[in-house]
Amino acid sequence: MIDFSTDPDHYKHWRLTVDGRVATLALDVAEDGGIAPGYDLKLNSYDLGVDIELYDAVQRLRFEHPEVGAIMITSAKERVFCAGANISMLAQSTHVDKVNFCKFTNETRNGIEDASAHSGQRYLCVINGTAAGGGYELALATDHIILIDDGASAVSLPEVPLLAVLPGTGGLTRVVDKRHVRRDRADFFCTTGEGMRGKRALEWDLIDELAPRSKLDEAATARADTLAAQSDRPADAEGITLAALGRTTGDNELIYSHVTVTFDRDRRTATFQVRSPDAAPPQDAAAIHAEGCDFWPLALARELDDAILHLRFNEPELGTWVLTTSGDAEHVAAADDALLNNPDDWLVREITLYLKRTLKRLDVSSRSLIALIEPGSCFTGTLLELALAADRSYMFDGAFEGSNLPPATLRPTDMNFGPLPMCNGLTRLDARFLDDAGKRADIEAEIGNDLDAAAAEALGLVTFTPDDIDWEDEVRVALEARSSFSPDALTAMEANLRFGGPETIESKIFARLSAWQNWVFQRPNAVGDGGALELYGSGKQPNFDRKRV
Amino acid sequence: MIDFSTDPDHYKHWRLTVDGRVATLALDVAEDGGIAPGYDLKLNSYDLGVDIELYDAVQRLRFEHPEVGAIMITSAKERVFCAGANISMLAQSTHVDKVNFCKFTNETRNGIEDASAHSGQRYLCVINGTAAGGGYELALATDHIILIDDGASAVSLPEVPLLAVLPGTGGLTRVVDKRHVRRDRADFFCTTGEGMRGKRALEWDLIDELAPRSKLDEAATARADTLAAQSDRPADAEGITLAALGRTTGDNELIYSHVTVTFDRDRRTATFQVRSPDAAPPQDAAAIHAEGCDFWPLALARELDDAILHLRFNEPELGTWVLTTSGDAEHVAAADDALLNNPDDWLVREITLYLKRTLKRLDVSSRSLIALIEPGSCFTGTLLELALAADRSYMFDGAFEGSNLPPATLRPTDMNFGPLPMCNGLTRLDARFLDDAGKRADIEAEIGNDLDAAAAEALGLVTFTPDDIDWEDEVRVALEARSSFSPDALTAMEANLRFGGPETIESKIFARLSAWQNWVFQRPNAVGDGGALELYGSGKQPNFDRKRV
Repeated sequence: MIDFSTDPDHYKHWRLTVDGRVATLALDVAEDGGIAPGYDLKLNSYDLGVDIELYDAVQRLRFEHPEVGAIMITSAKERVFCAGANISMLAQSTHVDKVNFCKFTNETRNGIEDASAHSGQRYLCVINGTAAGGGYELALATDHIILIDDGASAVSLPEVPLLAVLPGTGGLTRVVDKRHVRRDRADFFCTTGEGMRGKRALEWDLIDELAPRSKLDEAATARADTLAAQSDRPADAEGITLAALGRTTGDNELIYSHVTVTFDRDRRTATFQVRSPDAAPPQDAAAIHAEGCDFWPLALARELDDAILHLRFNEPELGTWVLTTSGDAEHVAAADDALLNNPDDWLVREITLYLKRTLKRLDVSSRSLIALIEPGSCFTGTLLELALAADRSYMFDGAFEGSNLPPATLRPTDMNFGPLPMCNGLTRLDARFLDDAGKRADIEAEIGNDLDAAAAEALGLVTFTPDDIDWEDEVRVALEARSSFSPDALTAMEANLRFGGPETIESKIFARLSAWQNWVFQRPNAVGDGGALELYGSGKQPNFDRKRV
Repeated sequence: MIDFSTDPDHYKHWRLTVDGRVATLALDVAEDGGIAPGYDLKLNSYDLGVDIELYDAVQRLRFEHPEVGAIMITSAKERVFCAGANISMLAQSTHVDKVNFCKFTNETRNGIEDASAHSGQRYLCVINGTAAGGGYELALATDHIILIDDGASAVSLPEVPLLAVLPGTGGLTRVVDKRHVRRDRADFFCTTGEGMRGKRALEWDLIDELAPRSKLDEAATARADTLAAQSDRPADAEGITLAALGRTTGDNELIYSHVTVTFDRDRRTATFQVRSPDAAPPQDAAAIHAEGCDFWPLALARELDDAILHLRFNEPELGTWVLTTSGDAEHVAAADDALLNNPDDWLVREITLYLKRTLKRLDVSSRSLIALIEPGSCFTGTLLELALAADRSYMFDGAFEGSNLPPATLRPTDMNFGPLPMCNGLTRLDARFLDDAGKRADIEAEIGNDLDAAAAEALGLVTFTPDDIDWEDEVRVALEARSSFSPDALTAMEANLRFGGPETIESKIFARLSAWQNWVFQRPNAVGDGGALELYGSGKQPNFDRKRV
């Protein structure tokens, strides 16, 4: 089982230090510390375990270190920064593992950019040795790249010439779309195994700054101080502690304080039950800080995040995630108010950003998402986003026979109108109605109102509204049908239907780059018996099928 | 050998009729008329041969029928519109063939939308029977879809549920991004094998109009007349004839009047030599009409178009296309002037649009493009686009030793600043410099000037400028390296680096949808021994690997 929980005391591969406004994340990979057997993590190359620690560190810096305004990513090893994803690990991974690994590493790097853009924690990368492949891609996710000018250290994306795969962690997209490296230069760079160093790397915009060995620390510190000085984070605030998640894992369930996931292996479904707060959540910043990681929106984000990652990696055959909720709409609306009314508090901002990232993780999960909206449910505000993230939703029209639960309702809040955009930059409501601003306005007019099935359907918020007579059959047929289809075709279809409208660097990474990477990861020229990825390090030359396609 | 030249007298599958302002393209597929043996084209299903005729018809309508303002696509068969791409054909095709087929069919449908948007020829689709898969996708490429309301005829995208592949001809993208079908409805529609008919299809925006059998012709005619009345095409003008291309095909060459392609099979390169007009081209519309398909810009577009398609389908192992030019810059500049100064002439407009589409075809070709700019070359205006389309360009600095040819120059014209955008909506110069409007302005200031290697390099127009000492080695090394890399990795890399910046429906189709389709076309669940595509029609159920990825 892959477990995503860790903390700095248990890191094997990263050293996290905080010095006033500046933190340092130094990569120091333990060669024998791979998450799976069969490979050595030489030259600061990484596997999923290294990236799980990086993800944890980025999260903790946000929540536990309000005082940190700049983070320096560097290497603790001499003359080597990072050799990228470990090749032997990739070569021995299944296709599922490769794709899952790349998606998670992409999300972590997008999270770094999210911190830089929205959280007042600016990242810089100090490349003190060679940065190859994923090593350089990690640098590309930061705001500022300083490269040591030692006549030897280079940045490179050698995947195409050496391995016959793509730089799979956003490198191609970030080179042209973020750094605006001219496309012909990007072409040359990405086909040059040894990469580029010194002045040319700077001239071609592959890096931002050069420093000789003797001046590297000084340049790094100066830049970090400059970035930290731009931060709006409070230098004197206290962080909260991200305590270990209380989670119970059974053969067919996953239980957290506000989220339970139950597995139906015959129907290949995992049903999420997301519960509202038990009581009205605190409304002022001081009380929210006092609750810390028990504050419901934060607990919810952490639990959903962990559940999504757990299911992605450990339960790949549960192809449909059924999204349900329960509880008290008033409490969820109050939780949304608590977030919306304290936008200038650093912690509240972090919590909202974390909810955003968690919902984005749901959007790009390769699982069919079906929301079931039943009496007793609580699809309000932030939780309504679950129904809007779903590929399809069923809302029960009326009351269950013989039940005293009132009919299900949906309640929009201001959280549905901005703070939780998808990776394409649109809110889920805007992605739902695209250019039809009228439909969005109709729903905005209902903020705070409880919408029954007829109203929700008329507003376009739900797909179907079966009544007591049809509900069971209709839902069963939908889930059985979904479960009978090709998992691959569903993944590809959903990747296309979920993200209408504009594109961002982030959506391009998941849509275009990842799709091509997934394709290459299937091609015999990469992964066949004589493929480059398989033969790497063997001294044998791959014998490519030369047909271009 | 696949040959893309045909004409209405030789169509096996389409009936093209013109009646005043309205043309009708009726699909009447000859079951035994497949382009390859081994399958029957039942139920108006199609293969590449059917689509080659469609492409020819769309082109001829543009050039030979200025009077046509609306085109009705329908079926000549009773109660069946089109069953989409033939499944047996797909199942027996190689991966290369599938991808090439999908790309060409996509380009043809994009060309239909281009005619609707820019050419004054509006398309409508009259679905007089069931339209499944690619049949409905063809309808989606038109401006207006009328469906017969007979209680039986449906539109559908049954690929996911029935075949475990994607609708590969833009269907998913057009449903959500063009027609703005709500994403949850699109999800239901695309997983419902039998599709949708009647009022629900209309209510869900899958079609634009319903008509009972008895009123179908009337509704179609009325709509066609309305669309034709909006056209700015001249009702009384004479078309030109697209005479058969004069082409000589050798084992290692392809010779047209202005384009020669020579093959080096050892280096796996095809070298395009594109020649300027031999004399100054005519400048006024009447003289351009008189030259007809011999007018250089039109001849160039046709020859390049045919060469690109020929190489894609018949020479898949020639992985690098080397782009060279020769001739007189004045004549090319004059040809550009002729196009730019007659924008309101229907034929001139068509020629410019055709150049645009041909260059787009080059952009999305899965071949490495290397421009060599040597003394004697003629990269002016429209031909400069070839260098800008290249993944990389080498410009010879100075004169060849012992040669009296003057040093190479580049000359921008107004053609480089708008009329020939890429599929993402940007000119190649804007895609090159993205948000740097200053660099674009620097080049705009040089319109009409001959830029030598130093100037071209300073302006960012070329990648490298070797001199006589380095040229031969540098070019040889570049071509040999390119030829040594994995063809798949290059395809995927180029697809990411070529299209920085914004996305359009067209770029999404080529970037996101096609990449996922290519991936699915590699997956065992579709094409393995027990895959759905292989087993279709056998009565056997596929046994899917259930892991989601």
